Amino acid sequence: MNLRNDAQQIIDSTIQAALPDTAVKKALEDTNFSEGRLILVSIGKAAWSMAKAASDLLGERINDGIVITKYDHSMGDLPHIRIFEAGHPVPDRNSFAATEQAIQLVTGLSANDNVLFLISGGGSALFEKPLIPEDMLEDLTKQLLACGADIVEMNTIRKRISAVKGGKFAKLCEPAQVFSVVLSDIIGDPLDMIASGPAYPDGSTCQQAWDIVNKYKLTVSEEIEALLNIETPSTLTNVTTKVTGSVTQLCVAAEKKCRELGYEPMILTASLNCQAREAGSFLGSIAKYYSNTDKSLAFILGGETVVHLKGKGLGGRNQELALGSAIGIAGLENTAVFSIGSDGTDGPTDAAGGYVDGNTVKAFSDHGMDVFKVLEENDAYHGLKACDGLIFTGPTGTNVNDLSVLLIKR
Amino acid sequence: MNLRNDAQQIIDSTIQAALPDTAVKKALEDTNFSEGRLILVSIGKAAWSMAKAASDLLGERINDGIVITKYDHSMGDLPHIRIFEAGHPVPDRNSFAATEQAIQLVTGLSANDNVLFLISGGGSALFEKPLIPEDMLEDLTKQLLACGADIVEMNTIRKRISAVKGGKFAKLCEPAQVFSVVLSDIIGDPLDMIASGPAYPDGSTCQQAWDIVNKYKLTVSEEIEALLNIETPSTLTNVTTKVTGSVTQLCVAAEKKCRELGYEPMILTASLNCQAREAGSFLGSIAKYYSNTDKSLAFILGGETVVHLKGKGLGGRNQELALGSAIGIAGLENTAVFSIGSDGTDGPTDAAGGYVDGNTVKAFSDHGMDVFKVLEENDAYHGLKACDGLIFTGPTGTNVNDLSVLLIKR
Repeated sequence: MNLRNDAQQIIDSTIQAALPDTAVKKALEDTNFSEGRLILVSIGKAAWSMAKAASDLLGERINDGIVITKYDHSMGDLPHIRIFEAGHPVPDRNSFAATEQAIQLVTGLSANDNVLFLISGGGSALFEKPLIPEDMLEDLTKQLLACGADIVEMNTIRKRISAVKGGKFAKLCEPAQVFSVVLSDIIGDPLDMIASGPAYPDGSTCQQAWDIVNKYKLTVSEEIEALLNIETPSTLTNVTTKVTGSVTQLCVAAEKKCRELGYEPMILTASLNCQAREAGSFLGSIAKYYSNTDKSLAFILGGETVVHLKGKGLGGRNQELALGSAIGIAGLENTAVFSIGSDGTDGPTDAAGGYVDGNTVKAFSDHGMDVFKVLEENDAYHGLKACDGLIFTGPTGTNVNDLSVLLIKR
Repeated sequence: MNLRNDAQQIIDSTIQAALPDTAVKKALEDTNFSEGRLILVSIGKAAWSMAKAASDLLGERINDGIVITKYDHSMGDLPHIRIFEAGHPVPDRNSFAATEQAIQLVTGLSANDNVLFLISGGGSALFEKPLIPEDMLEDLTKQLLACGADIVEMNTIRKRISAVKGGKFAKLCEPAQVFSVVLSDIIGDPLDMIASGPAYPDGSTCQQAWDIVNKYKLTVSEEIEALLNIETPSTLTNVTTKVTGSVTQLCVAAEKKCRELGYEPMILTASLNCQAREAGSFLGSIAKYYSNTDKSLAFILGGETVVHLKGKGLGGRNQELALGSAIGIAGLENTAVFSIGSDGTDGPTDAAGGYVDGNTVKAFSDHGMDVFKVLEENDAYHGLKACDGLIFTGPTGTNVNDLSVLLIKR
């Protein structure tokens, strides 16, 4: 009946499933490329790992390739693949130069050729070729940041002044087929947002772009005016997209492992976004209702909660969520809640998350602490630490939001 | 596909099931009383309705009876039953006199006789016979309120200075059989707390009572000292207890109606106690995960949420919960969330609760309102009113906490 051990097994196997390596291999499992050339373009913070996985799987089948990742994020040579490091979160000249190389690589391909396009977070900065001079871009960026435009509005403008964003990179690959594998780190997998959607049809219009310019009274040059009048591709006929390693897959992997361990699992959501502590309280009340069940149950949540900081303690949203459930499950036998950040880091702490069970409230009390007061102080880290309730994984090499699980074992 | 109509049907049938009348009849369905006399004792705010239901069902089988309810809470004569009204929430001489009558009614019964004991909220004040003089009781009550003792500590003391609390009334009924029907208005149905448990075994001890006296340095007379040394009944052999009309039954009734309407229902909890708005957000993220399902689903919550007042608007916890889910379900087809207080009153408003669906965010926007801002202002009432999102039932005649439901119709 070691729930802590079950939790650890679930954490290990779900993080394994969400690693760029595993995720890319899974995405490529059933893929058949046409007989022509196969060009690999891998962009983002996980670009090297994703390219490595593809290279391990496809080997000599890859004719040529390029990796564009953040400084210090490549981990060695890969056969037939050139590796570039560039600026993030602010693009620099290396971003532009590497992107130019990628464009050349996919230019002049035939309809029998393939572009394997691997995308991870950070791609917006790393993969960019502006269609306006650098100083003009800088001025526009400053205006957009200062005026209070939201991220959707900013992207509507940005896509028009870029040679690759908003589906334009896929256009440059034509007539070759683009097979796009997206490692999603944004809840809901908005494909036009991840790396600004270089290979995804764009829903925005010139009219919308002009409405934004007028709304915020932006000053735009003639060059920008001309670009705002060009529609981005609203359809793409040469792209197949596969989302992998998203928080949904994290939940599905947890579901699978829970079932193997004898639990009857249920995913409640993959887009949790409420307050961490309240989500914990909610899980605690679910636990109470099912406390008399004769089946082992697992309730699974994916997403990313928020913490409203009031106190001056140390913690993270996952530690708060777990501790938030402690009062609800207090005294319940064989009942536990754990929550982790899939990147292995929860808030400004060295822990990945927190674990509580039916004995946690008593353990706190034995240590002279009160769960409610610790939560009010936002000090879940020190509270859980004293009761052996912290979960450590170290940096995991992936980042697909958080996983929270309620386990009831019979 | 009229979700609003489904919601109304679910509300109507669950409130019907939770009415004292329905609840008592359900509890008495399979009850066989032994051949002797049948004495009815009904106490609490719903005492008259409960007695009326029993009288309708058992008629002339009731040999004698008594109702003790709050002033202005009786609604007419009942055959063979004397009706008393008394003080609540502070007991008065009418409480003591009526309780004395009840004690006389159950004194001297034989083992073949039956006491049908109907209990509802408010019974602590209405049903009381103190074992110490009135001024001494008043002094002790003041000390307990001033010292910061919690409700469990207060009850540990109070049960010892009462002739009927803490299982003692059931003892007075011996050797007759007591059939106790409890209309629970406290989440989790703590039977020793509802009306201070006149017919429920008491778990507290003399030692605990003395620990409380010492902890808070209470001044107690010799009479009280003597009473604190007498153990309350920790076991009762002549009592059968049935809880009815609780929030759990509210959920079960909703589950039944949802199934009739073609939904696959799931009760998530009957003891929800987190922040209203965050519970709504949680439901919204569940809705997103199941938005692609091909089955009609209903997720059911019972309990009582809290509202953290920040703004100066008008609303109630059910209206906030519903509105808190609006952003999460925005744009989802055939998806709705509603939440109601079973008493028909939500906060200081004339509404019972709120209803939102996938169009609510847009409807707010069309009225020049923003859901987020309305929530920040705690002004759910006016926001929902403008969009026809308020639910009105009028006073329902029951009070078994709140019901919240997420409907996804296919």
